[in-house]
Amino acid sequence: MATKDRKNVVVIGGGTGTFTVLTGLKKYPFNLTAIVSMADDGGSTGALRDELGVLPPGDVRQCLVALSSSDTLMRALMNYRFESGQLKGHNFGNLLLSALEKTTGSFDNAVEKASDILRIRGRVVPATLDKVTLVAKLGKRTVRGEQAIRDTKLNGTPLKLSLSPRGRANPKALSAIRSADAIVIAPGSFYTSIIPDLLVRGIPEAIAKSRAKKIYVCNLMTHAEHTKDFTVADFTEKMEKYLKSPINAVIYNNKLPSAELLKRYARKGDKPILWNKLPKGVAIGADLVSRELPALQKSDKLHSQRTYIRHNPSLLARTIARILNVHV
Amino acid sequence: MATKDRKNVVVIGGGTGTFTVLTGLKKYPFNLTAIVSMADDGGSTGALRDELGVLPPGDVRQCLVALSSSDTLMRALMNYRFESGQLKGHNFGNLLLSALEKTTGSFDNAVEKASDILRIRGRVVPATLDKVTLVAKLGKRTVRGEQAIRDTKLNGTPLKLSLSPRGRANPKALSAIRSADAIVIAPGSFYTSIIPDLLVRGIPEAIAKSRAKKIYVCNLMTHAEHTKDFTVADFTEKMEKYLKSPINAVIYNNKLPSAELLKRYARKGDKPILWNKLPKGVAIGADLVSRELPALQKSDKLHSQRTYIRHNPSLLARTIARILNVHV
Repeated sequence: MATKDRKNVVVIGGGTGTFTVLTGLKKYPFNLTAIVSMADDGGSTGALRDELGVLPPGDVRQCLVALSSSDTLMRALMNYRFESGQLKGHNFGNLLLSALEKTTGSFDNAVEKASDILRIRGRVVPATLDKVTLVAKLGKRTVRGEQAIRDTKLNGTPLKLSLSPRGRANPKALSAIRSADAIVIAPGSFYTSIIPDLLVRGIPEAIAKSRAKKIYVCNLMTHAEHTKDFTVADFTEKMEKYLKSPINAVIYNNKLPSAELLKRYARKGDKPILWNKLPKGVAIGADLVSRELPALQKSDKLHSQRTYIRHNPSLLARTIARILNVHV
Repeated sequence: MATKDRKNVVVIGGGTGTFTVLTGLKKYPFNLTAIVSMADDGGSTGALRDELGVLPPGDVRQCLVALSSSDTLMRALMNYRFESGQLKGHNFGNLLLSALEKTTGSFDNAVEKASDILRIRGRVVPATLDKVTLVAKLGKRTVRGEQAIRDTKLNGTPLKLSLSPRGRANPKALSAIRSADAIVIAPGSFYTSIIPDLLVRGIPEAIAKSRAKKIYVCNLMTHAEHTKDFTVADFTEKMEKYLKSPINAVIYNNKLPSAELLKRYARKGDKPILWNKLPKGVAIGADLVSRELPALQKSDKLHSQRTYIRHNPSLLARTIARILNVHV
């Protein structure tokens, strides 16, 4: 599958921001691998974990859809959410991955088979195949579970995040990192969607060893309860702490979203990330905000988070490609 | 898809017996079309009808699996039954068809798309696309719903079966019947799996008009509450009443199943159909019983009916093919 003269690009994340990065990068001649966080336990994914004892399918599903070369119908089917009865709230794609996990005997095989069915370009790789729970220590208090941590105010208290159990890296993830020419950290809920990838034993170590260019796509908005008043420099500094190695390029948005969009966030205290403090020598600003209001797909993440202000996949991918000296 | 020098064979039924006929006939050079009863309302299928307002997927799923040329895993996935939590009892394939019906906007489109996904050889056609309920009038008593009728003693009281609403034939079913060289009525629960196809307005009329050879595969066993003491001649006579036209060949089993197998049925009063009274001039006897105990697939029908005595797909298909003068 890997074409020799193409650059190997690894995208690390999980959730809607990763979907955006992959959707944009798919149009470039890269060998793409998405490494996906496995700490999700909310919504349909959480119910399936609890009731069937499966690994979390939601974020993997989103990445598969992003990289799928199937028709629109197959993609719509994967994101279809049942609206009534006992199935209410479940995404069909989540059920597909869980049924495949049961039928094939492993989540790894399930992802491979779903990749075939959806004819994906590139690869989707779970960060770990262990059943991990995200744990936040806030001083003396412990909050267990990604969804619970999402709903907890993390500001103002010293925070220690970990996975329980720690989680061993999926060998396929390590191998992709080893042969990567570039590693892109996707935007997304900072502590609950992105950092969990870097808590997996072996992942940050492999990234540190890798000769790949490390590119961090900074979020567009702060989250009042988690990343209040963070600047681009703050995000970068925190990210490097978890990454345990320096970032080579930080992509940030340098044009304010519309006042109308900002209003929707202001109620919750979420604000645009300002570029008044930038990490030195690595910051690359661009106009990155999508002008379109996202269509209301009723997928997991949209349902629970309603992200109206998003990266434009094409503008973001063009910025990443330029850093890698690839133009189409 | 239809190859010109191949015979067009239409199989009419629904459920496990139809699965068996299709599995056997698939190996012959026929253009196969399965016309499937849409009155099922038990188990996973019934729950989906009630909760999502979809058409019944269970019997269609079984026919799709029978005709699929996908790998073993895809077939296992379609029949996979969730074993715990809110999804308990649902077949994955049923969920696929229901999600496709919701995504494409029609059950007809859903079946077409599922046929693509499963790479089926032949076609699966719902008998009607109307939401029908099987209704049994037993003297003054009315029983509504296929599952309820399954559980009702029908013997000894004059029976009138109908669909409510009557149900218009799917134009694809009529067109398949019109161009058929042979029409095979599959074995299966007589009043609840097979007859509902013939209650759809237009179906028996089209069969009567058709120049196709009409072949009836008689059941192996009587059902104490529905077809007590029926002979091959009784089955044929009843079938012709609903069919409204004569049958050209009746295939019956002429070798008793093993005593061990018969014991399992005897408790409920179900007995092998005896060939002491045969329809005149059309009866074709053969040794047709499968020697293997069916593997416990946890699919809809097996779950509720546990049919241990079944037709051997190869022996049955060979008998049908011989009638059509086709040999492989």
